[in-house]
Amino acid sequence: MLVVKKFGGTSVANKERIFNVAERCIEDYRKGNDVVVVLSAMGKYTDELISMAQDINPRPPKREMDMLFTIGEQMSVALMAMAMNQLGVPAVSLNAFQVTMRTTSAYGNARLKRIDTERIFTELECRKIVIVTGFQGINKYDDYTTLGRGGSDTTAVALAAALRADSCEIYTDVDGVYTADPRLVPTAKKLKEITYDEMLDLSTLGAGVLHNRSVEMAKKYGVPLVVRSSMNRKSGTLVKEDAKVERMLVSGVALDRNADRVAIIGLKDEPGIAFKVFDCLAKKNINVDVILQSIGRGGTKDISFTVDDGDIQETVEILEANKSRLGFERLESETKIAKLSIVGAGMISHPGVAAKMFETLYNENININMISTSEIRVTVLIKSSDADRAINAVHDAFGLAE
Amino acid sequence: MLVVKKFGGTSVANKERIFNVAERCIEDYRKGNDVVVVLSAMGKYTDELISMAQDINPRPPKREMDMLFTIGEQMSVALMAMAMNQLGVPAVSLNAFQVTMRTTSAYGNARLKRIDTERIFTELECRKIVIVTGFQGINKYDDYTTLGRGGSDTTAVALAAALRADSCEIYTDVDGVYTADPRLVPTAKKLKEITYDEMLDLSTLGAGVLHNRSVEMAKKYGVPLVVRSSMNRKSGTLVKEDAKVERMLVSGVALDRNADRVAIIGLKDEPGIAFKVFDCLAKKNINVDVILQSIGRGGTKDISFTVDDGDIQETVEILEANKSRLGFERLESETKIAKLSIVGAGMISHPGVAAKMFETLYNENININMISTSEIRVTVLIKSSDADRAINAVHDAFGLAE
Repeated sequence: MLVVKKFGGTSVANKERIFNVAERCIEDYRKGNDVVVVLSAMGKYTDELISMAQDINPRPPKREMDMLFTIGEQMSVALMAMAMNQLGVPAVSLNAFQVTMRTTSAYGNARLKRIDTERIFTELECRKIVIVTGFQGINKYDDYTTLGRGGSDTTAVALAAALRADSCEIYTDVDGVYTADPRLVPTAKKLKEITYDEMLDLSTLGAGVLHNRSVEMAKKYGVPLVVRSSMNRKSGTLVKEDAKVERMLVSGVALDRNADRVAIIGLKDEPGIAFKVFDCLAKKNINVDVILQSIGRGGTKDISFTVDDGDIQETVEILEANKSRLGFERLESETKIAKLSIVGAGMISHPGVAAKMFETLYNENININMISTSEIRVTVLIKSSDADRAINAVHDAFGLAE
Repeated sequence: MLVVKKFGGTSVANKERIFNVAERCIEDYRKGNDVVVVLSAMGKYTDELISMAQDINPRPPKREMDMLFTIGEQMSVALMAMAMNQLGVPAVSLNAFQVTMRTTSAYGNARLKRIDTERIFTELECRKIVIVTGFQGINKYDDYTTLGRGGSDTTAVALAAALRADSCEIYTDVDGVYTADPRLVPTAKKLKEITYDEMLDLSTLGAGVLHNRSVEMAKKYGVPLVVRSSMNRKSGTLVKEDAKVERMLVSGVALDRNADRVAIIGLKDEPGIAFKVFDCLAKKNINVDVILQSIGRGGTKDISFTVDDGDIQETVEILEANKSRLGFERLESETKIAKLSIVGAGMISHPGVAAKMFETLYNENININMISTSEIRVTVLIKSSDADRAINAVHDAFGLAE
């Protein structure tokens, strides 16, 4: 059996944890399995690199930022190989150049395109554990790129797909996927199984367990994922197409605090204006989320949307730079907002789910800023300071508590 | 003009020094020159990486050690590119994969074989300053290798040769090449020019300014070197074939404390035995220096030699492992010894130079452990505790003081 195991930064944050991960991988190896391990940078090392860079250049070129970032995972994989060797098992660490992990060109937010599996299979044939740097790739210029938030999950899923692995295990600091983040909602319950689509909505909306790109890729290539803890032996949550979910109306509640809101006030009310706005943001790799467009009044309209809080400054600058071309009156931006979402494949056939959520928030006296819905999801924007109260109230209202 | 500039770890040890280096490079760039910069890891970062590794595995695999080491230079070059960018100059950092810096296979002690200059020339044509990681390469397996002590100097010289640079400037924490290490000999004098051969002997013997491999390579390809300080604007020392040295008998005195001595006692006195001994060390990439072989007595003989102090443990282990094959009685090893050398192209035609050195040490009551000579050099092994006294006495005796 070929197993891909991915461990995040907290799982390799120090010597003891590195050996803990090494031992878990060796257990699998000793069963006769081929083991490929994907690692993130240790603990808060990426944050340290960011502050080193910003001390030198408050707005470092993204290409050089990626060149700096990639050393974090290279450190993790080299130390892990040393730990396994110390435990008597042959292991080899490989970076994005050695695996030829090709991505699109976009620094800081690249997408994986192609993985050359030859080197990995060669090493596995020598009965080595293969340890691969997560999060990083190389573009067509042979420059390092990074995959953005949750990039190591994506690396693991992409490797599992490319190697046709039998299993892809994502180890994290939680036991699995819960009906809500247990740190926020003490009564949250662990799910045994969940579908890709539900997981996709939960991860997109800030459940914080898996990144949406990795789930999208797992769905596309049919890679079954196991989400479990590196700290204990609990069984975790299985993410797959035909998950046997106890068919509840709502299977989870997600909260994302990493959102900022931008409003473009007084845009010309003419065809194609929304395209122009979001095209100039997309070209700069700004991910735009919930979008709301007002009905036109007096020849103008307003467009509001959310972006990741790390992108707010750049978003405003890009829009200001294109002000005359886009023709708007002014920008408003609001930070400290939260996205609260309910997700469930069951809600397709049950009207009134959204209404129940709004009612719950109304009873808690929480104001809803914007609303967005899909077939299996309802999202609202609220003040960040209301978020904890809101998620607990909604979680209770849908009977998700243990 | 195309200029290669190499800066060591102390020159990029912190933010201020990084900007200092960036500014010096930009000065050259603004004159219209093409500038290629080679950097070492910051300050003591390589030592930090060693202790991280050893905390996990006291004897880490060399391949993984190189994987870990190479992040040091990658950090330096990325931060330097950010600093230059902050100062308004386009710069790009490149690692060994991006420059295709091919080396022999030997991890930890590889030799450069081939450099692909295409990427560097492309970036120079875009009027960027190109910043290349020193010390590192990749072998035929596409694994990282490192070049051993002084490796970044070698990278700089090899790049200068491959790019047919007009000048190769080695920036260090001293003003140039002195008649002796000024930290040990306060009266030491700076040399304006020196030949490759003299520099080679001085660097091989621990003058600590340039590594011998880099000087060998500079000599081979006729790359004129300038050794100068990154901290001041003094003119430094020019190293070239036809240096106009004031023809003194002795041009410098060198001291190397990083040596340990091994004695193989009771070797069979048969042909080829010395070959067998040094061949099995060479295969493990142990550099052996001063060798002394005793005259055979009763069918056996002794061989003594020095190795770098980092290699002493491995040397003893290799010899013990081959004890039955080599057939010797026992090993003795001695640490804390020093190599003191006088170097000078002038001594070829002047007998009595060695005798004068021995007399000086005799007058200081310093015992000589082993002696080795070449045409332009006399080396003695002495106790490390006698070293400071010895170098000053010899420096004075040959009239080198300022």
